[in-house]
Parts: sequence; C-alpha cells; structure tokens
Amino acid sequence: MNQNLTAERPTFVTHLECSLTGQCYDADTLHGLSEAGRPLLVRYDLDAVAANLPRPMLDARPTDLWRWRELLPVRRTANVVSLGEIETPLVAIPVSGGANVLVKDEGRLPTGSFKARGLVMAVAMAKELGVTRIAMPTNGNAGAALAAYATRVGIETIVFCPEDTPEVNVREIALQGARVWRVNGLIDDCGAIVGKGAAEGRWFDFSTLKEPYRIEGKKTMGLELAAQFGWKLPDAIFYPTGGGTGLIGMWKAFDELEAMGWIGAERPRMYAVQASGCAPIVKAFEAGQEHAERWEDAHTVAAGIRVPKAVGDFLILRAVRASGGKAVAVGDPAILQAVDDAARHDGLLLCPEGGATLAAYREAVKIGEVDPGETVVLFNCATGLKYPMPAAPRTLDRHQPIDFDAL
Amino acid sequence: MNQNLTAERPTFVTHLECSLTGQCYDADTLHGLSEAGRPLLVRYDLDAVAANLPRPMLDARPTDLWRWRELLPVRRTANVVSLGEIETPLVAIPVSGGANVLVKDEGRLPTGSFKARGLVMAVAMAKELGVTRIAMPTNGNAGAALAAYATRVGIETIVFCPEDTPEVNVREIALQGARVWRVNGLIDDCGAIVGKGAAEGRWFDFSTLKEPYRIEGKKTMGLELAAQFGWKLPDAIFYPTGGGTGLIGMWKAFDELEAMGWIGAERPRMYAVQASGCAPIVKAFEAGQEHAERWEDAHTVAAGIRVPKAVGDFLILRAVRASGGKAVAVGDPAILQAVDDAARHDGLLLCPEGGATLAAYREAVKIGEVDPGETVVLFNCATGLKYPMPAAPRTLDRHQPIDFDAL
Ligand SMILES: Cc1ncc(COP(=O)(O)O)c(C=O)c1O
Ligand SMILES: Cc1ncc(COP(=O)(O)O)c(C=O)c1O
Repeated sequence: MNQNLTAERPTFVTHLECSLTGQCYDADTLHGLSEAGRPLLVRYDLDAVAANLPRPMLDARPTDLWRWRELLPVRRTANVVSLGEIETPLVAIPVSGGANVLVKDEGRLPTGSFKARGLVMAVAMAKELGVTRIAMPTNGNAGAALAAYATRVGIETIVFCPEDTPEVNVREIALQGARVWRVNGLIDDCGAIVGKGAAEGRWFDFSTLKEPYRIEGKKTMGLELAAQFGWKLPDAIFYPTGGGTGLIGMWKAFDELEAMGWIGAERPRMYAVQASGCAPIVKAFEAGQEHAERWEDAHTVAAGIRVPKAVGDFLILRAVRASGGKAVAVGDPAILQAVDDAARHDGLLLCPEGGATLAAYREAVKIGEVDPGETVVLFNCATGLKYPMPAAPRTLDRHQPIDFDAL
Repeated sequence: MNQNLTAERPTFVTHLECSLTGQCYDADTLHGLSEAGRPLLVRYDLDAVAANLPRPMLDARPTDLWRWRELLPVRRTANVVSLGEIETPLVAIPVSGGANVLVKDEGRLPTGSFKARGLVMAVAMAKELGVTRIAMPTNGNAGAALAAYATRVGIETIVFCPEDTPEVNVREIALQGARVWRVNGLIDDCGAIVGKGAAEGRWFDFSTLKEPYRIEGKKTMGLELAAQFGWKLPDAIFYPTGGGTGLIGMWKAFDELEAMGWIGAERPRMYAVQASGCAPIVKAFEAGQEHAERWEDAHTVAAGIRVPKAVGDFLILRAVRASGGKAVAVGDPAILQAVDDAARHDGLLLCPEGGATLAAYREAVKIGEVDPGETVVLFNCATGLKYPMPAAPRTLDRHQPIDFDAL
C-alpha cells in the first residue's frame, strides 16, 4: 500500500570504499571491515541520483525512511523490510531548552530508538546478500532493533549486552526472537565475543561500523533534517556520541546532498556529546589527536554512549573538526537534571542520552559557544520510557474520607 | 517551522450537540456532559470546510494531526500545543496476522499512546477556554498524555489511577509534572473521586467523554485512515474498546468525510474488542440492548480496556451495529499468545490491548466472520514497551572459556 515499500526503484551504488585508505571494494558482495581494519563506506553515482530523482517526485512520496531509496543500498524491493520507519518529528522545548531549540525525537521509530534506522538497512542488505546468522554486541537499543528486523526476515540472531543493560531492552530482544546474553563487561567486551565467533565462521559480525550498511540507514537522519528545514540546515547539531554512526552518517548525508546540488556548502556545527565518565572522543579532540584511546573504567547513566573505544573514532573527529563544532562532555548530574527539566516543564520525556545533549547545549550557551538565537537540533535517540524513572509512591484509600485539600 | 503549528487557519465549529437528545449548546464556552448526562459532540459547517480545504491543500501539509485544523475545534493558533503528533504508520504482520492485516501503530505518538490524540486536543481547548486545574481518572496512558500536554501549557493536573497501573505509567505521569495517586479500586472508582472534586468546584473533570474535545482528537484516527487508504476505507477495523472514544471518534470522522464528499457511503465493519474478564459492551451487544450494565469484578491483563462502565456505551453500540460489525471478547491467554506471536514472528511488539485485537481477528477468521482476503486494520493503541514482558535471564561469564556451540 505504501508505495515506498512496494514500488521498484532504480539504485545507484557504484562501489564500497575504505574510509581510511580509499581502497575500492565491490558492492553486492558481503563485506566486514576493510583490509586496513576500518569501516567501509558506500558510494553512489550522485549525478545519476539527482537526474533520476527530481525533488517534486521525492516530495510526493510518503515521508518515511524508504522514500530515500535512490540514496540507499538496497537493490531489490523484495528485500525491503519495514516496521514503519516514520520521519521523526522536531519537538520544541522552549522552557528547558530555548526558543530556537528543537529535539529530533527518534524514540518514535520502531523498537523505540534510532537504532531502527541503521538496523533496518543492515538487515535488508543481509537478506539481499544471503546472510543467515548474525551476532551483535549492544548497549540495548541496537539489539532490540536487530531482533525485530531479523526475526521479520527469518535471520537467526545472537545478541550480547553488558550485564547492567536496562531490563526492558533485554526482554524486548528476547521476545522479538533473538537469543540474548548478559555479559559481565562493557560493550567492547561483548564485541570481543562476537568477533571471536565471527572469526570462527559461526556468524556475521553486526557491530557498529563493522558492516557497511548501518551507517547508510543512520544517514537518513541527515537527509530528513535537510528536508524538514526546507533544504537549509540548522546552525548546530548536538549528537550523543557512542560509536558515532549517526554523526558520521549525517555528515555523509550532507556531502551527498551537496554533490546533488540540493544543499549548499554551509554545514551545521556538529557537537559530539559524551558523558564525563566515558569521553574518549572528547579527550582526543582536546588533545588534537586523530584517533582516540580506549577509555578505562567507563561509567555513566547514559548507557547508549558508554562506548570506551569506537572503530570510527577518526571519522567522528574529522566531521566535528571540519564542521567547526566540538566534542564535549557532561556529567551525570547535569544529564539527569536536563531529563527532569524537559519532562517537568516541556512535557517531553528524554532518554538519558537525549538529556546529555540538552545539558551540553545549556553549557554551550552559558560559555558563549552557541548563541541562543541560533537554530539548534538536539538528538533524543530513544524513548525515555525504556529508562528508570524516579518512583512516585502516593496512594489513596477510597474507603476512607478523602481530604481534597491535600491532593 | 512546521506550518501546521504556526499558520493561522479558519475554523468551522458551529455548536455542540447532546449525543442523546440532540440539544444544542454554544461552542466557545466550557462544557462537561449535557443536561441529559451524556457526551457532547462538536458540530462543524462541513460544506464550508469542504469549500475552504481543497484536497491538494491538505496533501501539501506535513502529515501530522494538526493538518486537520479545519475539522478540529481549536480557534487560535496560539492555543495549539504539540509534542509531535505524527501520522502513525500501518505495519504489516504477515505471519501472525495475515497478508491483508495492517496494524495501526499508535505507540509512536507522544507519551507512547493514542491518548495523545485526545489529550492534545482537550488540553488545547482547556487552554483556549481558560481552565487552570484539571483532574482525571486513568488506566495509565491517558494520564501520561494529560500530564505532558498540561505541563507544557502550564495547567495544574491531578491524576488518579487503579493501584495496579503499570509502574512506568505512574512514574511518567509524575515526572511530567502531574500529581498522581494510586487508588485501591478500578477506573470508575477513580472517576468517582474526580467527579466529587469537580462537583465541589476544585477542578475541571477530564474523564473520557465527559468533556467534548478528546473525541475530536481521537477522530483523527479515522481521518488518517481515510487518507492513508487513498480515500477508501478498509473492510474491517478491530478496536480495543474501553471507554470507546476512539471507535466513536472514527465513526464521527467517517460521517464528516462523507458529508464533505471525500468518501462514499461504504463503511468498514467496526469490531469492538473487549477482554472476557471485562466485556460490558459485548454483553449488551449480544443482548440487543442500547446501554450496557456495569461489569462486576473486572479483570484482564489488558488494563486499558478494563472499563466496567462506559458513559458512551450507546454510541459504541450504535456505531458497531450500523457498521455491520460486532462486539467480541477474547480471553487473556489468547491476548498474550497474540502479543508473543507478533513479536516473535513479525518483530512487532504490541501492547496487550493491541494483542486483543489480533486475537479477535484470528478468531473472526476462524469462524468465518472475516474473510482472510479482506483488508483489515488492527489498532495497537500503545507501545508494548510500557508493559511487563517475560524475563530473559541468560548470563555469560567472559572470564570463563565460552562454549560457542551452546549460545
Ligand atoms: C539512546 C542512544 N543514544 C545514543 C547512542 C549512541 O549512538 P552512536 O553509536 O551512533 O554514537 C546510542 C547507542 O547505543 C543510544 O542507544
Ligand atoms: C492501550 C489502550 N488501548 C485501548 C484503550 C481503550 O480506549 P478507548 O477508551 O478509546 O476505548 C486504552 C484506554 O486506556 C488504552 O490505553
């Protein structure tokens, strides 16, 4: 019924390219990292995309993720999988944020997080390329999205998460047909198990950026922003950065849109937001380094950005620097205060990672890094409903007289 | 930025009308129930709407709830409140449902349920009409939506819910700035407390159908369906029925669209789905009665449809009968099985109330009430993430050798 899911569409992928060395790889065959051990990026014939996709044609399509088909890698419509990847709304938070602050509320996507964008694409491509068994390390949200889509196309999945992953996520993953294991360690410890099994040929490794297609899905955040802002971009974007796929993906989207002539050369300043208890990218940014060292003893309430070591560290750092933005860290108390303020004053329940972007924005305004007159987008990457909230224990006995004045 | 939220639009409300007696009431003043103790319905000059809103104009707007402004009661754009009320997607569930079954996934709305539709409208109108204090009984989701929107416009709210309301909901309500009380009783016991306080002039009563505007918001489910299906309607709709606002609202939407000449006279068969442990509408339907008696000792896992007595009972029954549909009950085991199947096989996590519609659909196919070739919409009115899920307790010690064959 939705034409984006059923109409055959031309595709324009030319090849894959190592993000470090530029070495080319064939499209349409299964790849993990490049020979240099770095992420592969999908390349398109963008002139052909521009020629084949006039903007009015795009405008006439339903506004979901699959309307960007010409800029996505899936060749055959039969491999498109969907749980309803809507365009996420921009929600104003005038009181807790400010008059020009918009939250891109990614919690509205299937399985309640932006991980659906990456995984819908990666799973569709896994189907297209004949993968039958996938494993993945996750802080929770990515595993939930993988389980949902993989189950839907009949691919077997095994998921590993840190032992303190939110209970909702673990149960959701299991209910959606994956086998899920809690591991006494952090996400990179889980990643090591996945890597070992992959090396033994037991499964395909779906870790962030270790396969080329999650980033293509995440790229749609940048495409959507451009469309929502009328083909201009906001002044600044605050992105909660763990593995950094979203930030890298948006940056790639902007480049592709410029090559197509749909936007100009101006870019938003990109702010990579991390938690003070796990800020490897911030440390590398401040030290002027190209790569980030592993962060030891990582801890933060914002589990999604508790990523001690990111395989795409240099891509995050490059984008942030090229944009004139920064990598910034915020403490857990500021994160929790931001979540509380947005809910209490603007009625918007952020996840802790979303709270981190609000906390970072407030700090940036305070030190004059951002002007309150600038248009800013904060990414709330998951629904706040998955995270612990303070207890609210008032009870009332209806069989007793009620003291209405005390309610 | 979103024109639906910022552009002034003409409005076409003529008056309010008692749903039982037809007696007229002024628009633009505050009303609860009619003098006959029945819900008031908002009436529009539909010829004028049709003349002022050509379909291409509607098509050009962003596809959110506020694009229907001409068919909604809010007069002044300054009173429009929004947390991003997107058009909810239709998700196929080919394995657990069937080839022609689509789930309207209302869990994507603000606060994770379709209650946002009703409450965004009721709160906007409360603001327009100068209300400063609201109280409401809730099984959880409505309270969460009320808290979010009311907080946003600065209206004080007090919410009462049954003591076994899901913890997530209670916490969410509190975090979003409402005062929330658990009561040892069911939703109508909570409603009695709200009614008492309202009679004493302590607050405005926001119970389902006791104020005229929630139904106008819920109506947008019917408007959206018509637009999503290209101005034809599906063959049947399965709706999880508690207070029934959504079903009544959709029925009203279809009438209004027909009066505008946008759809024809054909209607979907409306199936009001209840739980066997609380099925007052089913009982009345089967007995051929116009009103339903209170259901004693109500119990079901699907808390949202645990409504022993609905003030709009006769409106539900009328719509169901006029449509050629039925009121049907399903047991908790069938509900839980449906939730499990949709998650495990189609990767879609339903709430129990959504599971009830799938269970009812399956039963209807089994007994020949619905043909599998018919196009059917099931309403999943909230995100499944708010509800208890089975535990998934596998753990792995990374310091021990891993038996990969056993994963
Ligand atoms: C809610 C949330 N925010 C942010 C992130 C970080 O995303 P990325 O890996 O793209 O940096 C994650 C990743 O798990 C997440 O779940
Ligand atoms: C998830 C869910 N489904 C269905 C219902 C019933 O809705 P209605 O009052 O429109 O019958 C509710 C109401 O609380 C609900 O929360």
